[in-house]
Amino acid sequence: VIDIVILGAGNVAMHLYTAFKATKTVRIIQLYNRTKTPWIAFLGNTPGIDITDTISALKNNAHLYLLAVADDAVIEMSHKLPFQNKLVAHTSGNLSITACSSNNNRGVFYPLQTFSKNQPLTYSEIPFCIEAETETNLKTLQTVAEALSPKIYYLSSEQRKTAHLAAVFANNFTNHLYHIAAEICKTHQLPFELLQPIIMETAKKITHTTPFHAQTGPARRGDVNTLSAQVKSLQHETYKQIYQLITQSILKTYENNQL
Amino acid sequence: VIDIVILGAGNVAMHLYTAFKATKTVRIIQLYNRTKTPWIAFLGNTPGIDITDTISALKNNAHLYLLAVADDAVIEMSHKLPFQNKLVAHTSGNLSITACSSNNNRGVFYPLQTFSKNQPLTYSEIPFCIEAETETNLKTLQTVAEALSPKIYYLSSEQRKTAHLAAVFANNFTNHLYHIAAEICKTHQLPFELLQPIIMETAKKITHTTPFHAQTGPARRGDVNTLSAQVKSLQHETYKQIYQLITQSILKTYENNQL
Repeated sequence: VIDIVILGAGNVAMHLYTAFKATKTVRIIQLYNRTKTPWIAFLGNTPGIDITDTISALKNNAHLYLLAVADDAVIEMSHKLPFQNKLVAHTSGNLSITACSSNNNRGVFYPLQTFSKNQPLTYSEIPFCIEAETETNLKTLQTVAEALSPKIYYLSSEQRKTAHLAAVFANNFTNHLYHIAAEICKTHQLPFELLQPIIMETAKKITHTTPFHAQTGPARRGDVNTLSAQVKSLQHETYKQIYQLITQSILKTYENNQL
Repeated sequence: VIDIVILGAGNVAMHLYTAFKATKTVRIIQLYNRTKTPWIAFLGNTPGIDITDTISALKNNAHLYLLAVADDAVIEMSHKLPFQNKLVAHTSGNLSITACSSNNNRGVFYPLQTFSKNQPLTYSEIPFCIEAETETNLKTLQTVAEALSPKIYYLSSEQRKTAHLAAVFANNFTNHLYHIAAEICKTHQLPFELLQPIIMETAKKITHTTPFHAQTGPARRGDVNTLSAQVKSLQHETYKQIYQLITQSILKTYENNQL
C-alpha cells in the first residue's frame, strides 16, 4: 500500500481524492487545504480522515505528496513543506518538473482531463502523464497512477507542455466554439439541444478516423457561396473574425486535397 | 405506408436509405442517382430495389421525393423532375424552402447531423428540421421524420440557416481545432489518443451544463503567464493567430465574470 497526502481543495484534488478512495493500493493518509470548499466541509464530518489547514501539521511519513493546486501556488507551497527528501509531485500540465522546490524529490502527476465539480468521471479512461527524476520515484508514480487507470504516459516536461497546449485547442477552445454556437442559436430562438447530437458525433468520429479525414462543411467543400453568405450573416464582430480565420485555415489545410 | 423516392448518391442519401429501410411506415420505392457510388453499386445486386440514373424514368406515384444532393444540385434537379404538384423536399441546412422549383410542392427535410461513409448512426437521436408550405405537406414530412426519430423541429428557412451556421462552429470548426491539436501533438511525437478522453468529456459536459459555465483553461482563469508562454511556443503562424483570437474572445466573454 502506498500512503499519499493530497494538497489542494479544488476540482482536481476532489476528483483525485474520490478516485483513490476507491482503490486498494493507494491510501490517503491526509488532506491539506487552505480554504474550506464545500466538499472539504462535507469530508470534515467523515470519521477517519485527517484534514488540516496548517502546513506545519503535515504528516512526514507519506510515500507521495500530491500538489493538486493552481500553477502559481505550486512553487510557493513546495517551498513551505515541513520536510525534505520526500517525493512531491505537482499535477500541472504546464509547469516543468523543476517548478517544485528541490528540498524534496520532484515529480509530476498530470491527469489529462477536464475536471468539473459535480461531474463524475470514468477514472480508468484518464491518461496520466508522469515524470520523475529517478527510476524509483517514477516507479512509485506509476504504481499510484496504475491504481486508477491503465493509460500511463511517460512525458518529459517539454512534451507535457505540448500536450497541454494541444488540449487547450481540443478542449478549452472547442468549448468556446460551443459557446459561440449557443449564442448564435439564442439570437434566433433556437434551442441549443439541437446541436448536442452533432457535437457528440464529431467528438466520437475522431476516435476511429483522423480529424484531417473527418473534416466536412462548406470550407472543406470549397463552397464559396455558403461561406460568404455565412460571414455576412454574422453580426458579432469577433465571431465573424473567428469564422474567417478558421475558414481560411481549413481552406489552406486542404488546398492540395480538394474534394 | 408512405412511399418515397430518394434522389442522391452521397452520404446523406445512403444514411437515409439505410434508416428508412428499417422502418415500417416509410417505403422506398425508387432510388435515383447520376453517379454510381460504391454503395449504389452494392444495392444494384439487391433484388426488389428500383435504381435508376435516368431522371425521366422517375416514378410519379411517390408521396415524397427527397433531394439528398449537394446544395448547388438542388435547384437544377428540382427543375428537371418529370412531374408536377408532388411533394419534393431538399435535405439542406442552408437552402431556403424556395430553392426548389415551384413546379412541385416544396418542403425541407434537414437532418442536423454529420454523415460519414462507414460510420453507423443512432438515427433516433438525430434532430430532423422540417418545413413545408401547407399543413398537409408538413404532416407528411412529420410522419416520415417520426419514423426515424422523436426529435422533430419545425424551423423556418431563416432559423434553419442559423442552425446550420451554429453547426459550422460546433462541428466543422471544432473538428479543425482537433486537427490543429493533432498537428501540435505530431510535432512533439505525442500520440493523438492522449487527447481523445478530454475531447469526449468536453462534448459530454455541455449536455448538462451550458458551454458558458463549462469553460475552463488559462484564458478563463486569466492566467496571462501561461497564455503568453503558449502563444510564444506556437511555430505555425495561423495556429498562433487562432490561439490569440479565441483567447481574446474568451477573455472578453468573461470580463465581467472573472474567477
